Amino acid sequence: MLKDIDKLEKIKKLKIEELEKLAQEVRERIIEVTSQNGGHVAPSLGATDLVIALLKVFTPPEDAIVWDVGHQSYAYKILTGRNADFDTLRQYQGISGFNNMSESKYDAFGVGHSSTSISAALGIACGKQINQETGHSIAIIGDGALTGGMSFEALNHAGHLSKDKLLVILNDNNMSISKNVGALQKYLTNMLVSRSYNALKKQVWDFSSSLPRSIRTRFIRGAQKMEESMINILVPNIIFEDLGFKYVGPVDGHNISRLIRVLNKVKYNMVGPVLLHVVTKKGKGLSIAENNSSKFHGLGPYNASSGETEKRLNQNWSISFGEKLSSLANENKKIVAITAAMSDGTGLTQFEKKYPSRFFDVGIAEQHAITFAGGLATKGIKPFVAVYSTFIQRAYDQIIHDIALQKLPLVICLDRAGLVGEDGATHHGAFDISFLLPIPNLVILTPAYETEFHEMLTFASNYQDGPIIIRYPRGTINLNNDNHTPFELGKFALLESGKRVAILSVGHALDLANQVRDKLQEDENITAELVNLRTIKPLDYAYLDTLRDRFDLVVTLEHNSRVNGIGQMISNYLSSSSTSTSTSTSVLNIGYPDNFVTHGDVHKLYQEIGFTSEALTEKILKELK
Amino acid sequence: MLKDIDKLEKIKKLKIEELEKLAQEVRERIIEVTSQNGGHVAPSLGATDLVIALLKVFTPPEDAIVWDVGHQSYAYKILTGRNADFDTLRQYQGISGFNNMSESKYDAFGVGHSSTSISAALGIACGKQINQETGHSIAIIGDGALTGGMSFEALNHAGHLSKDKLLVILNDNNMSISKNVGALQKYLTNMLVSRSYNALKKQVWDFSSSLPRSIRTRFIRGAQKMEESMINILVPNIIFEDLGFKYVGPVDGHNISRLIRVLNKVKYNMVGPVLLHVVTKKGKGLSIAENNSSKFHGLGPYNASSGETEKRLNQNWSISFGEKLSSLANENKKIVAITAAMSDGTGLTQFEKKYPSRFFDVGIAEQHAITFAGGLATKGIKPFVAVYSTFIQRAYDQIIHDIALQKLPLVICLDRAGLVGEDGATHHGAFDISFLLPIPNLVILTPAYETEFHEMLTFASNYQDGPIIIRYPRGTINLNNDNHTPFELGKFALLESGKRVAILSVGHALDLANQVRDKLQEDENITAELVNLRTIKPLDYAYLDTLRDRFDLVVTLEHNSRVNGIGQMISNYLSSSSTSTSTSTSVLNIGYPDNFVTHGDVHKLYQEIGFTSEALTEKILKELK
Repeated sequence: MLKDIDKLEKIKKLKIEELEKLAQEVRERIIEVTSQNGGHVAPSLGATDLVIALLKVFTPPEDAIVWDVGHQSYAYKILTGRNADFDTLRQYQGISGFNNMSESKYDAFGVGHSSTSISAALGIACGKQINQETGHSIAIIGDGALTGGMSFEALNHAGHLSKDKLLVILNDNNMSISKNVGALQKYLTNMLVSRSYNALKKQVWDFSSSLPRSIRTRFIRGAQKMEESMINILVPNIIFEDLGFKYVGPVDGHNISRLIRVLNKVKYNMVGPVLLHVVTKKGKGLSIAENNSSKFHGLGPYNASSGETEKRLNQNWSISFGEKLSSLANENKKIVAITAAMSDGTGLTQFEKKYPSRFFDVGIAEQHAITFAGGLATKGIKPFVAVYSTFIQRAYDQIIHDIALQKLPLVICLDRAGLVGEDGATHHGAFDISFLLPIPNLVILTPAYETEFHEMLTFASNYQDGPIIIRYPRGTINLNNDNHTPFELGKFALLESGKRVAILSVGHALDLANQVRDKLQEDENITAELVNLRTIKPLDYAYLDTLRDRFDLVVTLEHNSRVNGIGQMISNYLSSSSTSTSTSTSVLNIGYPDNFVTHGDVHKLYQEIGFTSEALTEKILKELK
Repeated sequence: MLKDIDKLEKIKKLKIEELEKLAQEVRERIIEVTSQNGGHVAPSLGATDLVIALLKVFTPPEDAIVWDVGHQSYAYKILTGRNADFDTLRQYQGISGFNNMSESKYDAFGVGHSSTSISAALGIACGKQINQETGHSIAIIGDGALTGGMSFEALNHAGHLSKDKLLVILNDNNMSISKNVGALQKYLTNMLVSRSYNALKKQVWDFSSSLPRSIRTRFIRGAQKMEESMINILVPNIIFEDLGFKYVGPVDGHNISRLIRVLNKVKYNMVGPVLLHVVTKKGKGLSIAENNSSKFHGLGPYNASSGETEKRLNQNWSISFGEKLSSLANENKKIVAITAAMSDGTGLTQFEKKYPSRFFDVGIAEQHAITFAGGLATKGIKPFVAVYSTFIQRAYDQIIHDIALQKLPLVICLDRAGLVGEDGATHHGAFDISFLLPIPNLVILTPAYETEFHEMLTFASNYQDGPIIIRYPRGTINLNNDNHTPFELGKFALLESGKRVAILSVGHALDLANQVRDKLQEDENITAELVNLRTIKPLDYAYLDTLRDRFDLVVTLEHNSRVNGIGQMISNYLSSSSTSTSTSTSVLNIGYPDNFVTHGDVHKLYQEIGFTSEALTEKILKELK
């Protein structure tokens, strides 16, 4: 049946029972592919019925559909012409894990980060009005994404404009990624269990059971219809109506027939911006995912019957961070941990269990996370904020204006720095060094392996002179380095002495740097000097001063854009410092190119951007000539 | 009387009448100083009575008081030990125009940008709890600042934590900077005019007028008390209660006695986070400011009786932008203008009047502004988002993730780039070049005078290949340049040919660059080459390639941090490009230092950081030797 859906019109012709069967097939397809490729299983299973009802009632691209984050949109991808390619989900040159305008005309706006959908949909709605185009503009947003302040900014503006044909669908599964937090969530839950609402529901059902069978079904259908129109009266305190939206709901997000009825009502009968509240279950249709929706939010390949995933054989950076922070917190009672809805991803689950009163999950709210931490720091508390590199872009102003300007001594642990692989362009941590370096008063540390990482965390926990950023990648962490020397602020670590070529490696580039060094040795008998740039702000100028004229070539290697990376700064220092206007030493900066890097296996991405020992060695040799 | 208030305890001993007299004196002091120095007059006059009531009931620093933005806090500054120095308000080395922890222990958190206060106060409250300290944590936030998403993130978290002794005071004057927008504002206004509330009020007053004089006063006092406790019942739909706050209000923010009564109730009788809704009038006490609160929000020196300010003799950048955009919009119906509550400041008032349906004020919501513009751009609309350089830091992620990644062809006009003067460290646009350069797909233009600025705006209005940033400063715009050549993307403008020294000037650095050139000519008979770097992304590599070996020294000059500025990138290109590993040309990068620059007259600031023709000429000559 799924294979026959080559055009969207075909969905429109299906009956309810057929749509339900289609939903089943789509779910099977999602499970088939994600169990192989990994991906955001539970959110997409949860939204499958909603997708089908949406496509029955609305017609993209005339109706613009914007998925918030994009976690939930696999069924949408499958049904809008991407089923044949769906096996390539999240793979190099395959279907993206998120929505992407360049992948399909059915994706009205590209997504990846949270809480952007209402802004984009409102912009689209205003654009349509100026163009005098028809069609709805629809944002589908999870209750987690709704906690991001940007969503509120957009709701506030949309309610003010009172824009027609703007539909915000709140896909409420009472979970963002892990268990949701925030007063709004509590409010939504309260709304669902509202006494007057449920009391009436119970009375109606009690009454219906006393009816003769012949008319009971008809009565129930009528009661359901009534319920939909009564909810606004029965649940009076509707926050969205205060903001100028018409509120419809809550509607069972797995009842396709009912969803279609409600969506038709919204489409044809309602004027002004509408918020439709749909209640779904994350992982719906795959019991292992329903029962463990946090694990199944997003994961690697899994066994679809047992739910087992590949065991991680090696220690990873996030876990290592969480363990060390827990042990530091045991001694230092001033340490607190803060996450923006990423307790699991950033390795803080252990900390959360051990020190619940010193653990803060602020929701998907990076801006607040940083300034909240700033407030704590003014009271002598030592906050460690753990956040992905790509998401800290959301709190850039707060780092400058609230933290660095006031020299508040907190620690920001930037996880997932560098390329992250399958999540792709929206999720790579490709810019943080570039945008953090110009901020005054910051200390920026880049550990390469666990021993020095832990030393840095200890150092940061005692540091009182200002904010510290510690930046590290996704995945496996090397435990030690044979030539380890204790960490010292402002001092690089010389790992190997050498001649002709000096390789200055930033953080987790060290593995690649070692490979390049080995290759230079083997192929060309060049013994390169190898330095681990642990501390990139402040730099170790004393060491940098020794480089001039001692080497033919200095190579900087960093997992960050080449533009405004640390390499460029070092190159600039070596060439334009007034102590020596001319030098025989030239500098080669290796970093990511000045374009967005796509998704896929991280090794394929490294190949694409020339981050291999072969490509780099060749480049170095060319430069030496 | 004000002169006797050398300690906060003295305020606590004053009677209501004395407090009212004190308020009057404080207002006079604010007017006396701001009429000389300029400043945020209307917000601070509006909050004066609130400040006095606050200081009567609470005791900073034990009670931590965080002012949002800081516009409203002059009375607070005057009464917390800064009256003697208040004449130096906003002047170099004088009292800051905003709150600042290093200026006074009574400022619990530094501010300047909007919507940070609840996050900071919540952090402080949590820190106090961990430390087992006493005292309240208080955020005072305007209704405008409440539209910033960060406020919502913080409310959501605070409501969830249900933190005791956290007080958010909503200073509601129905204005942010210009007239407020947003559904929340409409909601607050509706609340104030709620029928049931006002009906009851009217009945009570009607009844009281029928009473004999002897008991009328007592009755009214009793009725007022009742009103305060009844409002929660009479106005049922309280958005803040949905978010977990206890709501108290609305209270007349100019009735000191009543404010004190309510604050005492909050302080001693209420558990959990409280939102106190205070209604004030911007400019209260100075009729010219009351009647024109938008002009008197923040302004330069003024005549306190007539309200006259110095006439601007010259065209300024913001006005020039607004005029040109209006004229472009007249021809191109796809052009829309977007501001985040800064219509006046960014020069868009004329556009707003001429094209109301193509003008969007989104409130203080930079994140939403950018992604909303992105949505418009997907529909072929051409949005111009006008925003101050310092505030675009709030939308950094949106520029990367929503705009640049998708190559959406919108225009961001960055006003107030470079040092802004009196507003100081929180408001300088000192970093934008550094943080924008690493973003792929961006075009960044830096006009130096009006003719080329207008050419760039025209170019941008037709450009379809991706986003364009146009960056310009506060203040006077030069109209033309004698050696003007038409703007072309990726081409610098050679203004003067020369020898030995080449000066590469970015945007409004051109005046200074010209002075330096003149001085080199006069003092040393050096005829420097002078180039206007109109387009810094992409750079004009063809021209840069001509510099090598042709000059002894290349000087880059930009109003942006030296760290990761365009100078560094040019220096890097000239020295490490593989076409020439060694060159006799050295490079000197002139930019702002790697620290935050303070407030004051911009010329004094330039002096401090060496942005004078004398200092720069000396530096250049030293480098040449």
